[in-house]
This record gives sequence, C-alpha cells and structure tokens, in this order.
Amino acid sequence: MSEILPSLTVSLGERSYPIFVGPSAASALRARIESLRAKGRRVLVVVDEALALAQGTALDDLFGDLPRALVPSGETSKNFHMLEHVCRAAAQARIDRKGALFAVGGGVTGDLAGFAAASYLRGIPFFQVPTTLLAMVDSSVGGKTGINLPEGKNLVGAFHQPAAVFACTGLLETLPPREFSAGMAEVIKHALIADAELFDLLEKQPLQTPTDPRLPGIVTRNCAIKAAVVQSDEREQAVEGGRALLNLGHTFGHAIEAVAGYGTYLHGEAIGVGLVLAGRLSAALELIDQDTVRRIETVVASANLPTRLRTPLPTDQLWEAMTRDKKVDAGEIRFVVLKDIGSARTTRSIPPPLIHQLWLTTGAHP
Amino acid sequence: MSEILPSLTVSLGERSYPIFVGPSAASALRARIESLRAKGRRVLVVVDEALALAQGTALDDLFGDLPRALVPSGETSKNFHMLEHVCRAAAQARIDRKGALFAVGGGVTGDLAGFAAASYLRGIPFFQVPTTLLAMVDSSVGGKTGINLPEGKNLVGAFHQPAAVFACTGLLETLPPREFSAGMAEVIKHALIADAELFDLLEKQPLQTPTDPRLPGIVTRNCAIKAAVVQSDEREQAVEGGRALLNLGHTFGHAIEAVAGYGTYLHGEAIGVGLVLAGRLSAALELIDQDTVRRIETVVASANLPTRLRTPLPTDQLWEAMTRDKKVDAGEIRFVVLKDIGSARTTRSIPPPLIHQLWLTTGAHP
Repeated sequence: MSEILPSLTVSLGERSYPIFVGPSAASALRARIESLRAKGRRVLVVVDEALALAQGTALDDLFGDLPRALVPSGETSKNFHMLEHVCRAAAQARIDRKGALFAVGGGVTGDLAGFAAASYLRGIPFFQVPTTLLAMVDSSVGGKTGINLPEGKNLVGAFHQPAAVFACTGLLETLPPREFSAGMAEVIKHALIADAELFDLLEKQPLQTPTDPRLPGIVTRNCAIKAAVVQSDEREQAVEGGRALLNLGHTFGHAIEAVAGYGTYLHGEAIGVGLVLAGRLSAALELIDQDTVRRIETVVASANLPTRLRTPLPTDQLWEAMTRDKKVDAGEIRFVVLKDIGSARTTRSIPPPLIHQLWLTTGAHP
Repeated sequence: MSEILPSLTVSLGERSYPIFVGPSAASALRARIESLRAKGRRVLVVVDEALALAQGTALDDLFGDLPRALVPSGETSKNFHMLEHVCRAAAQARIDRKGALFAVGGGVTGDLAGFAAASYLRGIPFFQVPTTLLAMVDSSVGGKTGINLPEGKNLVGAFHQPAAVFACTGLLETLPPREFSAGMAEVIKHALIADAELFDLLEKQPLQTPTDPRLPGIVTRNCAIKAAVVQSDEREQAVEGGRALLNLGHTFGHAIEAVAGYGTYLHGEAIGVGLVLAGRLSAALELIDQDTVRRIETVVASANLPTRLRTPLPTDQLWEAMTRDKKVDAGEIRFVVLKDIGSARTTRSIPPPLIHQLWLTTGAHP
C-alpha cells in the first residue's frame, strides 16, 4: 500500500502531526484504523449524535464495529457530565495507555473528546475527524480541548495535540447551512489576522456552499494559518501576539454566548458579531479606517452571519462576562485588534467606557 | 527577611520545586502567601472539610480571609462532581492565569485540587499543603493528580507538578491514628523499594505516633526517595522500572479499594495488604525468601495496618478490578516485585492462576 501524503504537517517537535484534507482524508483514516487494529490497540469512537443519524452509513463504513460513545449535539454537551460519560465509556471499552480515542463531529465533540483523551489515564492519544467547517478550519487543529462552566466558556480543559487530523470535506455536504456559515466566521477571522489575499478572495466571491470547488484548498489554507500561529506559541504563553491573535472577536463572542445562554448563538454566529466589534474597536483606536470596518461587516454578512445582536442583551452583563473570560490577565482584559486586513496584534488598557460604547452599537441595551 | 531554605528540591527543569518539611514549613508558607498578596494575585484555598473543623484556628492563622472551597473528607470526593465544584469556586473567585490554588488536606484534597489546577484555564499553578502523613510522604510530591471512576481508581487526571510543597509536620498531631497508620504504608513501601536502612530502622523501632522526634527526618527521607524516582521518569514512561516502582503493592491495593467500595478501606490500609501480597508474589517467583516475607508482614502489622482482608471479597471481582487498573499495558498487567529489601523491579507475564492463589492467602473467597 502506498503511503498517503498529508496536506500539511503541524510541526511541534515530538508532538507534530499530519493533517489530511479532502478526498484523501478518508483513505488515510481507513489506513490508520487498520493499522491500530493490526496492532491490537483498543479504541473508542466518540461521535456527535446528529452526525450519527445523518451519516450513519458513512460512519459504519469508516469505523465498523468499534465501540462508540454518543455525544448530544450542541455547546451544552461541553460539561462535566458528558466528560464523565466519555471517560467511563473509555474505561468500559477497556482502553489502556496504548489505546486511542477518535473524535468524530464538530468543535463540541472534538473539544470534549480531546479533553477526555488528555485526562483519561492522564493522557492517551486521540485523532480528530472534524465533520463541520468550523472544526476543520479551526478547533481540530492546535490542541486546545475543554469544556464550559456556567461561569464561562472553555474555562476547564487541557492542551493536548491530536495524533492526526482527518478533514473529509465530502462529509460537509450534509452539514446544515447555518453550521456552514458558523464555520465561515473562523475562515474570515484567519483572513483578517494573517491572509489579506484570502480576505480579497472572500470579498470578491463569497464561499457559501460546501460544494464550492475552492473548499478543500481554502480549508488547507486555514489549517496552515492556524498551524503557523500554534507552532509559534503552542501553549499561549507569548506576552504579545502569538496564539492570542486567534482570539480576534472572541472576547466579545464568548460574552455573547455566555449572556445569551450557551446554544442560543452558534459559536461562529457570536464570533461574526465579535469580528465586527473587533473591527470597530480597531477603528476607535485609529488603527484602521471606517471603510475597512464596513468591508469586514460586508464579508461577515455575505457569509450569512449576524453582524449585530439578534435580541438586545444587557451591556453590564456582557461586560461582566468579558472580565471572566480566560483572556483576562492579572485583572486586565487583553483584546486583539487589527492593524490592517491580514495583520493583528494584542492590546491592553482599553478603557471600559469604550467597550460599553461598542456594545451599544451592536444592539446591546444600556 | 531572610530566605527560608527548603528541606529538598525536586529537580524537573523548569518544573522544579522546593519541599519544606517541619517547623520551617509554616514560615515558608506564610512568606509565599504574603508574596502572592503583594503581587495582587488571586488565590483559592481548597480545604479538607474535617481539617477545617479540627484545625480551624491554624487555618485562619495561615490563610486569613482568602476565599476557600471545602472538600468533604474521604476517597469518595475524588469525583467529577467535586472537580466541578472546585473549578466553579475558582471561577467565582475570579482566579486568572496568574492566580493559584492551594491544596490543604490529605491525598484526596491534593489529587482533586491538583487536577482542578491542571485543568482550570488549561492549567494554573498550585501549592501542596499536605496535612496527613500519607500526603506528606507520597501524594503531594510527584505531580500525579486525578479522580476516580466507578470503573477504577485514579483513572482520570493529569500530570501537574506543584509550585512548592509545605509539609507542616506539626499539623499531624490532630491526625486520627488510623490515618497516621495509613500513611505508614507508603513509608514502608518507600523503604522496600529504595531504602533498606529505613526498613531496618522501622523494624527495630516502629514509627507509631506523630510526636516521634524522628518524624520530620523520616518525612524528608521519603520525599527524597519519591523525588529521585519522579526525576528519573516524570510521566511514567520508562519501559522497565522508573516511576512504576512506586506502585509496589498498589495493583493489589487498588483492587481491594474498588471491590470493597471506595472509602471502606483507607488507601494506606489497602496498600498494607497489597505490600504483603507483593512480597508473597516476589517469593513465589523465588526473588526473595519466606523469611523476608514474614519480616514485611511484621513491619506492616507493627504500623497497625491490616495484612489480610477484613472481610472476604470475591477473587474473580478482585481480578477483574486489576485488569482495569492503569498498570495494564496492551492487555497485560505490570506487577512490581522485590529483588530484596530496598530493591524492586517491574515484571510482566505473571500467570493469572498465581494471582488468584495469592488472593486466597489473604482471605479472599474463591
């Protein structure tokens, strides 16, 4: 059997791993499962429940009779109860330290199963099989895993790199359009922080369907942007820039998710609003002009993402949620701002009244 | 203020940390808290509930008005529910990445709070303030943190080294005698795997009370044994020997705890029986003689620890629990055996009938 070459490799020393994108991903995944079987390794397949219904045949074809744990779809599954469910399923499947988990689903499944893999027996290998656009371009790459608390999103977790990522873009054809749009929020974010050419491309011809022939290429490009940032700052310890740049729009977006109640907005939808707010913050600091802000707003809207709150939320609660976010450092919120399309930096000491002001522009009530 | 010198240092590169033992530990702890306060760092003190009652004044004196989270005493607190409780308390105390947790209690509190610190915000620093003999000589050193599943003990957790360990031996004076004995199981284990002189010393004059003037010295000696093993194999990846040696008696002991129901035996009590069984296994493999087994049994008994099951447990359930233990590697159980007093090694391929036989010698029923 000839070896299948990855689309790219995330270079992190002994934690390096390949990413397979497009039609070759399924073949690479099959080969890996065969190799694990041949070595007698026990595995558990953690699967998103909605995906198990929508893609039952494809999953049976890929994973056969391997033991599975189902995870209900939606952000609310990122909790301690589901984490325990996955860990117990691993124990019942008698996974040992040489075994592995497969995370098959979107960001929720990947974050949850990844944290379970990081914690079960104090860490076993896991594989990401992202089945949403968001997971393919963002959450499956980089090793951030975790769950939410009522106090805030992703407040508990681990850095645990996958052993490989298999992005079978063909699986996206049954993805609901709303989920596809949510994934586009991270594509736009990547363009904004690191790839002006990709932004131009999305501006000229929006990417709106999974059948767009540009999709595998754009997914690979996004994985490469994410990989480059992660390689430079694996555990988000850079004082300036680094991995924190990936949080463009996220301090705002996480606050929207927390205050509206997890699941009300898809993560990517909240980030759509967050990207517009990050643009306005950058303009308020005179880093970019109003015309650039309008371009960002147009591209976000062209991906069928919200650019303002759907129903008003209280500004003081949004602020409160921001101060509880992980991006808070010794009491001060770190924001990511744009220097230009394709270039970002972190900043501090933003006066709270300015943030309150910005929330009001997006439909929050005072 | 003159700097307080640690009793020893665990050398793990950038994860190295000091251990303070005896009367100087409280002063060192006070100095550290003052320094965190001076820097404006937020901390949460995770405290064992029984200790909070028994040592209320001492705790108030050390920690003052710092926010606290209480953990009910006993092995049953090492669960997902309590983990969530501690993480939420950290979020509510608005601990950020520069904040820290203090674990004040026995092994249960340390393992739970340590895992919370490893996971909260994907890892923040924590300090161990062990208040039981077991925690001082064993669990507070080495960075293993975690919780139990109904399927087995310590099946979920993280490697997360503390930033410092403060072993205030004076606090042991209110420790119940049963808990003191449980700690002695790990002292005897350390002597068996690495320190024949310490074994002789315990054989000649048992260490039975916390007022024994030899205590601070023996605690320091135990921390040094543990530190040396951990330094050689931080994440238990050595193929032979290494950190696995610390599991002498533990594959048996964990099975007793799981089958009897967590909390029925104190961990150290189950290890007492486990050490005797490990001795018998070593003799069955003709590594040590029967006289040495009897010496081990005598030293275990002199610490007021059980050398056989208090009530019979079913051998098949004990076996089943052993095969689910973390020490299982690709389906095969790794045992630790003695080559002599003070010297141990790992072994595989022990025939299951021999293990069944050994269980019967200790009061299990067929």
